[in-house]
Amino acid sequence: MSDSSSVGIVTPQTAHFSEPLSLKSGAMLAEYDLVYETYGTLNADKSNAVLICHALSGTHHVAGRYSEDDKYPGWWDNMIGPGKPLDTNRFFVIGVNNLGGCHGSTGPRTINPATGKPWGSAFPVVTVDDWVVSQARLADHLGIHSFAAIIGGSLGGMQAMQWALVYPERIKNALVIAAAPNLTAQNMAFNEVARQAIITDPEFHAGDYYEHGVVPRRGLRIARMLGHITYLSDDAMGAKFGRKLKHDEVRYGFDVEFEMESYLRYQGDKFAETFDANTYLRMTRALDYFDPAAESGGDLSAVLGKATADFLVISFTSDWRFSPGRSREIVKALLDNELTVSYAELTAAHGHDAFLMPDPHYHAIVRAYLENIEFGKTQ
Amino acid sequence: MSDSSSVGIVTPQTAHFSEPLSLKSGAMLAEYDLVYETYGTLNADKSNAVLICHALSGTHHVAGRYSEDDKYPGWWDNMIGPGKPLDTNRFFVIGVNNLGGCHGSTGPRTINPATGKPWGSAFPVVTVDDWVVSQARLADHLGIHSFAAIIGGSLGGMQAMQWALVYPERIKNALVIAAAPNLTAQNMAFNEVARQAIITDPEFHAGDYYEHGVVPRRGLRIARMLGHITYLSDDAMGAKFGRKLKHDEVRYGFDVEFEMESYLRYQGDKFAETFDANTYLRMTRALDYFDPAAESGGDLSAVLGKATADFLVISFTSDWRFSPGRSREIVKALLDNELTVSYAELTAAHGHDAFLMPDPHYHAIVRAYLENIEFGKTQ
Repeated sequence: MSDSSSVGIVTPQTAHFSEPLSLKSGAMLAEYDLVYETYGTLNADKSNAVLICHALSGTHHVAGRYSEDDKYPGWWDNMIGPGKPLDTNRFFVIGVNNLGGCHGSTGPRTINPATGKPWGSAFPVVTVDDWVVSQARLADHLGIHSFAAIIGGSLGGMQAMQWALVYPERIKNALVIAAAPNLTAQNMAFNEVARQAIITDPEFHAGDYYEHGVVPRRGLRIARMLGHITYLSDDAMGAKFGRKLKHDEVRYGFDVEFEMESYLRYQGDKFAETFDANTYLRMTRALDYFDPAAESGGDLSAVLGKATADFLVISFTSDWRFSPGRSREIVKALLDNELTVSYAELTAAHGHDAFLMPDPHYHAIVRAYLENIEFGKTQ
Repeated sequence: MSDSSSVGIVTPQTAHFSEPLSLKSGAMLAEYDLVYETYGTLNADKSNAVLICHALSGTHHVAGRYSEDDKYPGWWDNMIGPGKPLDTNRFFVIGVNNLGGCHGSTGPRTINPATGKPWGSAFPVVTVDDWVVSQARLADHLGIHSFAAIIGGSLGGMQAMQWALVYPERIKNALVIAAAPNLTAQNMAFNEVARQAIITDPEFHAGDYYEHGVVPRRGLRIARMLGHITYLSDDAMGAKFGRKLKHDEVRYGFDVEFEMESYLRYQGDKFAETFDANTYLRMTRALDYFDPAAESGGDLSAVLGKATADFLVISFTSDWRFSPGRSREIVKALLDNELTVSYAELTAAHGHDAFLMPDPHYHAIVRAYLENIEFGKTQ
């Protein structure tokens, strides 16, 4: 574990916010907690901070490990650490669990102070807009006025984009990776099937399953299996599994026949053990609702006129869920506003999951972009 | 209803087979029924017969209506009838419900003579190979030695291909539409998610739900919703629904928000009312298992050396589940064997569903191909 490129042993922290938060839905959170982690050191003029926004099933645990024998590091450990593309020798990096999440921040599984019971179905629908407001309050809490960069992949990229729209003075660089200006109908349809699998699970109990001592494990498992298909490309699944049988010969039944089935069931089971179904519902709705151009009749260029940050936009050729064409829409709208934008369309076999993979070309681009970021006094 | 291009009012027939059928799985069906319909007239030397093979959720009811006020005609009524591309003034057309189906042929929902109860979980897994053998027996029953053509889309196209391999002397033309020589890993993965939704539904009761007076409606509904996404292209969903809201404004919840969600739920509900979950499991397994090239180590050309039929292969540009590339694999293997093959790759927006649509170009190609088929004495 004496890996010099690791941020090492990390400990999450909790910030409590007692100022009420008005949500886009009209609901109000009277108070809430955000769980976060930080890596590296904030410099004297607090100009080297980088915020990492997570995707659907992500967390605040972005890099490092919780103990010497922790089996898995944070979810973007290959990107973040001393000497890594996002170099913690230079930047102060913050990971935060979004509101509505299930990893410590206030969400459906945490206790509703008004009732003393888990929020469950009473926890409101949260949006990308709400997350960005809550993240700005976390920045205030940490004394950070302006981020050197805000970075996210997928749903995280949507948050980086939203930051550039609503807090242009607080973000110098937005790294929008494997994202889109909104979801296509097909993407929303996959989300809907996942949600229906959860909601129609008899153990969902209209979202208040905690009180029944059960979880809608079956529905969440189906949702995750489906998700996994869409995170990989057809080619990647072909290369990884093809039509490989699990056993020596075909058994003609409904137990696992093909390797790929075994993989999907394992992924589904594992996820259903830990993730919260109510969080899954809310994360997919946040994806569905994100559509900044809607306020100007679909004109993304008009909306991005508010942004002043520099942008790095990255897409991956085999990503059919957030295809390069969707990233190019963002790039075009940024260029329409004469903003500074770098765009990389990377050849990658892994589909949407490519944004999490340690591809050398991908990492070199992120590294080069971040190395060129200048900020004020070092510590 | 006096539509001169309709085959008119039709009546299904049932053929009983008392000779046992050995299935590829090793199981044996001691006896079974096949439900079928016919349109047009068999000519004197029985050389004008055309067999239609159905896809996952298809039936023997291919054309015509069951009564004057029948709301919906057979599933391929736009293709089949007097003067239509498959002209029943010229051809004698047969539609058959496959073994394991849920529309009258022996399957999980029919009575197992050995127990007097529905087959349920005891009904064996059936394959494309088994279907083709049973269809050949139906042809024997009707006194038809050789088909002028065997036609199918999707899973139906796989059956047409299989006919050409195992009964080359009994098929003059194979029309293989929107099909593939086997499923990709991604396709198999979608099938697996659908099956797991059904199997983990608490009302599945290990396949013997009939005895419990319930059906695994939730699981079947999820399976169908997912299916619908994969039958349409992303563009087709975008054009049909886009991000259109169901109500005037966003409601921030998990009820229907977008038009597309309403469509998917409706399709899922409708299907779950009528289709049988055990049949769905078996149809998807038949898709998974179909892989004629496996017997020669993946060499499709070697396997298709057994075929003698002429082929028309058709694919649709927006079909991402059975993409044109997969059809081209079939075409290449046929050409390697110097067989006569016509191939059309049609520009179509509807995705996999395009094979059911009345696109004029598509219909013109099928019409022209079938018009060129010559057969013996007319009646």
